[in-house]
Amino acid sequence: MEGVREERLVLAGVPARVRIPPHPKGLLLVLHGLQGSKEHILSLLPGYAEAGWLLVAFDAPRHGEREGPPPSSKDPFYVERVYQVALGFAEEALEVAEAAQRRFGLPLFLAGGSLGAFVVHLLLSQGFRPQAALAFIGAGFPMKLPQGQEVKDPRVLALYETPPALKGEAYGQVPLLHLHGTKDLIVPLARMEKTVEALRPHYGEGRLARFVEEGAGHLITPLMARVGRAFLEGFLEEGVGPRGA
Amino acid sequence: MEGVREERLVLAGVPARVRIPPHPKGLLLVLHGLQGSKEHILSLLPGYAEAGWLLVAFDAPRHGEREGPPPSSKDPFYVERVYQVALGFAEEALEVAEAAQRRFGLPLFLAGGSLGAFVVHLLLSQGFRPQAALAFIGAGFPMKLPQGQEVKDPRVLALYETPPALKGEAYGQVPLLHLHGTKDLIVPLARMEKTVEALRPHYGEGRLARFVEEGAGHLITPLMARVGRAFLEGFLEEGVGPRGA
Repeated sequence: MEGVREERLVLAGVPARVRIPPHPKGLLLVLHGLQGSKEHILSLLPGYAEAGWLLVAFDAPRHGEREGPPPSSKDPFYVERVYQVALGFAEEALEVAEAAQRRFGLPLFLAGGSLGAFVVHLLLSQGFRPQAALAFIGAGFPMKLPQGQEVKDPRVLALYETPPALKGEAYGQVPLLHLHGTKDLIVPLARMEKTVEALRPHYGEGRLARFVEEGAGHLITPLMARVGRAFLEGFLEEGVGPRGA
Repeated sequence: MEGVREERLVLAGVPARVRIPPHPKGLLLVLHGLQGSKEHILSLLPGYAEAGWLLVAFDAPRHGEREGPPPSSKDPFYVERVYQVALGFAEEALEVAEAAQRRFGLPLFLAGGSLGAFVVHLLLSQGFRPQAALAFIGAGFPMKLPQGQEVKDPRVLALYETPPALKGEAYGQVPLLHLHGTKDLIVPLARMEKTVEALRPHYGEGRLARFVEEGAGHLITPLMARVGRAFLEGFLEEGVGPRGA
């Protein structure tokens, strides 16, 4: 942790936590999952700040320091509430990214875990343009609607009618790596594979990839974190000179 | 390249090339593919020596500086000749690994590309125990036998009767990452997936994984090289203390 500072900030009006290395090379905006928090997702990305990544995480609506509680699965509108959180999270991510870039002025990268990975897809499908993105244990389709769940919010219905992954042409070929375990019972591996399949026609060579870890469940493992970092580092220098070795 | 020395050596009687960083943390033995050479495979692993990997590559039988030529696909015994090369390469790899470890005394890791990846499987199935291994653009099954090809050598026939990937219990759960492109026409992605499927029952969590790059052909891409290195680094400290972050 030599030289890495950790700070609590308010960015665009939202409580955030940042890890600042002495000589940052890139800014990684990190989106946590359902029931998560900025602190939790940062704890799953060890070594990033030490390797020169300035990490910015913030609490999603109804999570962490913000007025809660997170959606309860006992609520008949649970799914609707979950995707309302996702929609709010995506809007705030744009504002936080802008505020963080104003403050730190570094090339911007994006990562999300679980629901945060869905928000990554949502953002890319809306034209958001980080230099590269990571989708940990998530997919570009909303969860299957459990029996008895109702969705009335037209904005949430729209996510079911046209999921982000079906808007591949809007992703602008932003380099994207999915990281997933074969024993994920929350977001099944097949959902991720279906996502990649939907995006495939819209991507050129070497910008869309997946890392699949045998035996891993719905968890961001240390190996996923390492591999994700290696992927991001492959796109650090893109656009500012020859692609780094 | 600061401080990295490159040398030509003879190890266990075989011409080899080594890249030696100032403070090596691990020794990576690298096996090239058909028609390849020690120089060519090293050129596909940029950044490894700079990151502290001592790289050792040597020419397979009939390749590089050794008496050739490599097997010709016009030969009716082409397939037999290819796997005779693989069998010889595997035997020599054991000797070169031993000589290199005697000389440099570092934890041993293994990587191979294409036919070299098959040799990685062969070695693991024979009980060879590197700390972790990479199989680039290859599989643990021999190639499908093209029409008109004859195989008579009983050692090659044995590879077809019981391919390495079907001996998963013998791999000792050595951490293994496959790296493959979706447009590989030489070793189809399905061969790699079949390999992982065969090994799956013999591996615990977090030690067997695959990285699949959309659009990549039969080439070790810079992204594969990066991701492979990240994987190896996850197993550097295993067995000598707490697993590194």
